[in-house]
Order: sequence, then structure tokens, then C-alpha cells
Amino acid sequence: MKHPRNLFYAQSGGVTAVINASACGVIEAARARPDLVGTVYAGRNGIVGALREDLIDTSHESDATIAALRHTPGGAFGSVRYKLKSVAENAAEYRRLIEVFRAHDIGYFVYNGGGDSMDTANKLAQVAASMDYDIACVGVPKTVDNDLPITDVCPGFGSVAKYVSISTLEAAFDVESMPQTKVFIVEVMGRHAGWIAAAGGLAGNDPGEPPHLILFPEVAYDEDRFVEAVRDRVERFGNCVVVASEGIRRADGTFVAESGQKDDFGHAQLGGVAPHLAEVVRGRLGYKFHYAVADYLQRAARHIASAVDVEQAYALGRAAAEMAMAGVHGKLPVIVRTSDEPYRWEVGQADLSAVANVERHLPPEFITEDGFHITEACRRYLTPLIQGEDYPPYAGGLPMYVRLQRNVVPRKLPAWAG
Amino acid sequence: MKHPRNLFYAQSGGVTAVINASACGVIEAARARPDLVGTVYAGRNGIVGALREDLIDTSHESDATIAALRHTPGGAFGSVRYKLKSVAENAAEYRRLIEVFRAHDIGYFVYNGGGDSMDTANKLAQVAASMDYDIACVGVPKTVDNDLPITDVCPGFGSVAKYVSISTLEAAFDVESMPQTKVFIVEVMGRHAGWIAAAGGLAGNDPGEPPHLILFPEVAYDEDRFVEAVRDRVERFGNCVVVASEGIRRADGTFVAESGQKDDFGHAQLGGVAPHLAEVVRGRLGYKFHYAVADYLQRAARHIASAVDVEQAYALGRAAAEMAMAGVHGKLPVIVRTSDEPYRWEVGQADLSAVANVERHLPPEFITEDGFHITEACRRYLTPLIQGEDYPPYAGGLPMYVRLQRNVVPRKLPAWAG
Repeated sequence: MKHPRNLFYAQSGGVTAVINASACGVIEAARARPDLVGTVYAGRNGIVGALREDLIDTSHESDATIAALRHTPGGAFGSVRYKLKSVAENAAEYRRLIEVFRAHDIGYFVYNGGGDSMDTANKLAQVAASMDYDIACVGVPKTVDNDLPITDVCPGFGSVAKYVSISTLEAAFDVESMPQTKVFIVEVMGRHAGWIAAAGGLAGNDPGEPPHLILFPEVAYDEDRFVEAVRDRVERFGNCVVVASEGIRRADGTFVAESGQKDDFGHAQLGGVAPHLAEVVRGRLGYKFHYAVADYLQRAARHIASAVDVEQAYALGRAAAEMAMAGVHGKLPVIVRTSDEPYRWEVGQADLSAVANVERHLPPEFITEDGFHITEACRRYLTPLIQGEDYPPYAGGLPMYVRLQRNVVPRKLPAWAG
Repeated sequence: MKHPRNLFYAQSGGVTAVINASACGVIEAARARPDLVGTVYAGRNGIVGALREDLIDTSHESDATIAALRHTPGGAFGSVRYKLKSVAENAAEYRRLIEVFRAHDIGYFVYNGGGDSMDTANKLAQVAASMDYDIACVGVPKTVDNDLPITDVCPGFGSVAKYVSISTLEAAFDVESMPQTKVFIVEVMGRHAGWIAAAGGLAGNDPGEPPHLILFPEVAYDEDRFVEAVRDRVERFGNCVVVASEGIRRADGTFVAESGQKDDFGHAQLGGVAPHLAEVVRGRLGYKFHYAVADYLQRAARHIASAVDVEQAYALGRAAAEMAMAGVHGKLPVIVRTSDEPYRWEVGQADLSAVANVERHLPPEFITEDGFHITEACRRYLTPLIQGEDYPPYAGGLPMYVRLQRNVVPRKLPAWAG
């Protein structure tokens, strides 16, 4: 490359406590090489920002502000759930992207997201090549669900795992204190894969310690078996702490959260897994219960982020920008584990095409035979990922999270009609 | 007093992130005065432990273990929800308590709880006097609900306030990143008083910043007004973050959480406030939403306890033991605020009878005129209470919370027939 070109960065899918740490890594790496990168333009709301030519000029943000992204949850540039169709189905979208990139001299495309986003980056890489547009397309993995293949772990997962294991531990101490409360259920994320629920298992070390039951999407939910297991744990241990994935399904494939009930307006009741399970416990066992639904709190809990996770999120952001600047195309940086204990990892590379659209589930050897807990192999995998507490700075009792100015780059093209 | 006598300590009601810090203060103060206190006996499950003569000998716990109680959530000796009836209604229970105390030479009674517990301590003080049994009865205030009168704040509240304000802030960053999610609702504790919900208001500084709406038990819930307010905030700010107290009621006094629905078993649906409000939002506005139910997670969140709260919980535990050792009877130590800014407080004393059975609600001047937010006066009150982060020590990625041995004191009396 003869002259510095601009770098396009965007965030996609559900955000995490550390996706901004990756953004920080991308931008800091780019700023360190003014010979290669002119300006980092961020897409507002992911790839949609590129389609709409809605670009944020990050050069207006100070180095201190960019550094503060490392400890700020959410997606600083706005995320999106938008999957590009295949090139055959919607060539116009891909042409539009290339037009926008050409208009703003984008030479590097760094897309931070999950499997769908890696698919988008991969398709764009192919289209750019076929249109003879010179651009390096690189992904940055991200997902609390930890469901990408190849990479040992996805940034975002370690922090939600830490939050869920600590919250389960703390709630267990509370439940143990309250003799009347027999069952406590915490609902955690994971629509298709049980990695987050598995992390709840780290709160205890043996079957007598909470959590007593973990419900994984990978194991068919059977109400009778669940009820018997709860009764057994309450009788043996005095109470039963349950970590339930939002994505658990019955053997026929229906989600447990689809309760089939109607509300006052005649709409299907959303339900939620925890309220449903709580109602089952009350109806069939008569036990007093409490339940919590962690929802966004778990993936936004930057206040108790895993130091390992923050470091990896930052490292992969940096690596992605450096790969793009080195002309690497159609790949993403991944975490390679070289040792469990002591935990050691390094940054490797994988093809976007190998990561796109492949969902990694909990392997059978990570789930105990009865389907209700994690194995030692699973602990060996999970434990290193929650190590260290990367506390944000505080002022006035609250974390000093940063909001960006988000200065808009003047448009050069007609509005997108798509 | 001629010889050292034993001290009875027990925990009552819903536990908090810092009730064990009070226990630590009581036990450390007692251990510092072997001339006055022989052994600290803890009641297993509050006053019920005394009735059943189920006493835990804390002398078997090392100084290091007792010190670790300061950073351990839950109730180390087990709590209970049990309110003694009036002396006229159940004189046998009071006589039994005095018998147990006499059998174990209990000269000091320190009861750690909310309004009901202060009532219990107060009644016991009266009965002991009438039975000519020499005992100093002192309370230690505790409640996440912050609903005791006289004391400026109840230990336990500051930490849940910190958790709720941080969680609301973090969830708001998440929601802002997700353009499709229009409404986020977090349900917090507070069956009768809105102090915890009010704390969510600290996450933002002006009406444009989340949370956009707070629903207090002190303000009658009107569905139409709520729906219009949500629509207004979404239109003006792009999304609407709601902090809802579990205890909100309609003008007719019915709890919103009583949904009137039935589940598959024909039982009344528990509902929960957040799922109900979410369904209203979907049904009447069609917005995409998320909701979280913090439940026990909020009051057990020792990992992000307020340093002010921990210090006050410990100080009141110490003060209670010292008062009892000094022969103070029928009183409890309270927090007296001497300055808002800089925040200054000291320990005062109040009569148990003045605190028992009086519920302190949010005063009208703490709620904005529209009923949906907190005023500057409320911020001045709340802000000092969430200052400082009292982090527990960690090992292996998890907080080092301590479980006691709980050695049982041999029984000297026949089993309680009550």
C-alpha cells in the first residue's frame, strides 16, 4: 500500500461486557500505525451503518476515551442483528457496501461479532475480490454464548461466566440462610448452547454444594425427571439451587419457555424459563421458591469482568487490526489454549469460512451422565476463563463508563434505498 | 456483673450482603472483652434457635474465620421469618426463651433484623424484666428495604442500592447498543417501600439518561399512564429503561404482580412485576423488550458491596455488643447522618419500641411530581450510601466466602414442644 487508507470497524449481534475492549484494541492498533491507517470509521449499528453510509469518525475521540472503552460495557458504536443474504439473493447490498467503502477509501474491514458476522465478513471478502476492490476483511470473534468453533473461547463469555458463577454462589449463600426457601432458580442466557449455564456449575465443587441442578439446552428437559431431582436435592441438602438455560427444550424440540398460556390481551405468554420452572416446583412439590432472571445484567456486568476475558478481547481486537494492516484477508484471530494449568494461551488465526455458521455446543463429555451437572473436564476448560477481576475505575460510587461523541462522517453518496 | 456471662446473637428476616459484617462486629467486640463475655452463642435460624435450644458455639471459629464473615453474604447462622406473638397471646414462648437463656447463662441478647425483630427484642426485654431475669437486650438494624424509622439508613440497603444502580447503568449501556430493543425492565425488591427502586435512579443524572421510569410502591400504578410514559420515552430517547419495584400496586391496592392468570395446573400465576409489565408493553405498544428479575442476586451481591454499608454494618454490630456489655437494655444502635457532603455519620442509640413495627416509606419530596423518578433531595440522601467498593478477596476466580463449622452447643433442657 502506497498511502494510508481508512479502516472500517463495526459491532454486531448481542453486545458483551468486553466487546468495547476489542474496539479499543482495534483503534489503538490502528492509531499506532498512521503510515498504514488514516482514520478508523465505525459503522453505526454494525453493517447497517455501512449500508446507510452512517459512519462515526473515531478520530474525534481522545486517546483517553478510547482507552476507557476497555472498561465500558455495551457496544459503543451501536450493534445490530442483521444478516446479509447470500450474494446471489442480494447482490445490490454487497455492491452498496463496496461503493461506500470506495467513497471513503476503506482499505480495511474489521467486523466484531458472532457466527453470522463472520459469515458477513466472509461474503464481503469474496465479493470485494470479485469486484476487484482492494480491501482486507478480518473478523473479531465475540459472543457471550461461546458457540463459535475453532477458537478456544469467545471474548465476552469469560465475563458472563464469571458473573453467573459468582451470582450463583452468592444466591446459594442466601438460600442456605433462609430455611423456608427450598428452591432457587436462576435463568441464564444460551439459546442453543449451554456454556453459560455450565459456568454456574463452578460455584460448587461437589454434588452437595450448590448449584444442585443445571439445565442445559443440550439435554432434553423432562418435567418428571426435573421434579424428582428437585425433590431429591431438597430432601438430601435442605434446598435446591437450579441454574437453567433460557434455551432448554423438551424432547419434542419445543422450548420450555413457550408456555402455551395467554395473557389478558390474548397474546401468547412469554413465560420465561425460570417462572415456568418455579410454577412447576410449586404445583408439583409445593415448595417455597425464588427465581431470578439475569437477562442483560449478566452480559453487561463489566463491574465484575474476568481479567482473562478483557485481556483476550483486547488482544483479539489488536490482532485483527494488525492482520488487516498486514494484508491478511478472509481470516479472524482466535484464542489457542496451550495449557490448562497453568493456563496459557496465544493468538492464532482461522479462516472466516470455517467459523461462519457453525455452532459449537457443549460436548457430551462436559455434562455428567445424569444430565444435571458439569464434569471435571468441563471445569478444567471453564476455570481459567473466569480468572482475575478487571475492575473499572469508579467515581461517586458508580463505574466510570464512557459514552463517545460519535461524530458523523459527512455522506458522499445518495441515501441507500435498501 | 461479677463473672463473664454468655452472649446470644441471632439473625432474622431476609438476609443481606452485609448482615454477616454485623455478626463479625458483634463477635469481635465480645471477644475483645473476655472479662464480660464468656462465649457468643448464635441461634440457628434466629429466635427459633433459642426456642429449640439449637445454639451454635462460635468459640470454635477462628479469629480469621470470624474476620471473613465481614466479606461473606447470606446469614452465617441461618435466618428465619418468625414473629413472636404478644406476651398475652403466647406467654409460653417467652418463658421458654428465658429458660433457655438461664440454662446457658445468657446475659446479653443481640438480635439482628428488621422491624419485626426489633419488636421481638423489645418484647423479650419486657418479659425478662417482669420475670426478674437479668439480661441486656439490644437490636442490630438490618434490612435491604431500608424501611426502619429513626436510623438514617439500614445496613444492607447501601449494598443493594449500589448493585441496583450499577446494574441499571450497565443494562442501559447494553440497551442503547441494541436498536431493536426498545424497552428494558428490571424488577427489584421492596414489597412496601421504594427505596431500592429509587436507587436505580442514581444510574442517570438527567431525564434523558436511563433509567427513564421508576415505579415505586408509594405511587399508584396506572397502566394507561405507564404505557403513555413508555411510548413517550421511546419516541424521545430511542428506548426506555424501567426500574420497577416488586411491590407496585394499583389504586385499588391490588399488587400488580397478582396477574389473575392461571397456569397449566390451575394455580394462580405468580407473574412477577417485570414479566407483567413486559407483556403490557408488548400488548399495547408492540415494542421489543427484555426484562430482568434480580431477586436474591441483588441482596446477596457481596462482590460489589458498598464500602460505606459494610463499615456501618460492622460498626452497628460492634456498637450493639458494646451497648449490651455496658448494660444498655431495650435499645439499638442507629446511624445518625451529620453531613451530606462531605458525608459524615456517627452511631447513635434509639429505643427498640420506637423502631418496632414502624415502616418508613419514601417521603413524597423524594419522588418527582410525575411519580416516575427521584428528586435532587433523594439523590442527596442516596448518593453517600453507595460510596466505595468493598471487594472480597478472590481465589480461583471466585470470592472467598466462608462457611462456618457451626458446632452445636449440647442441650440442657427438654425439647421444645411449641
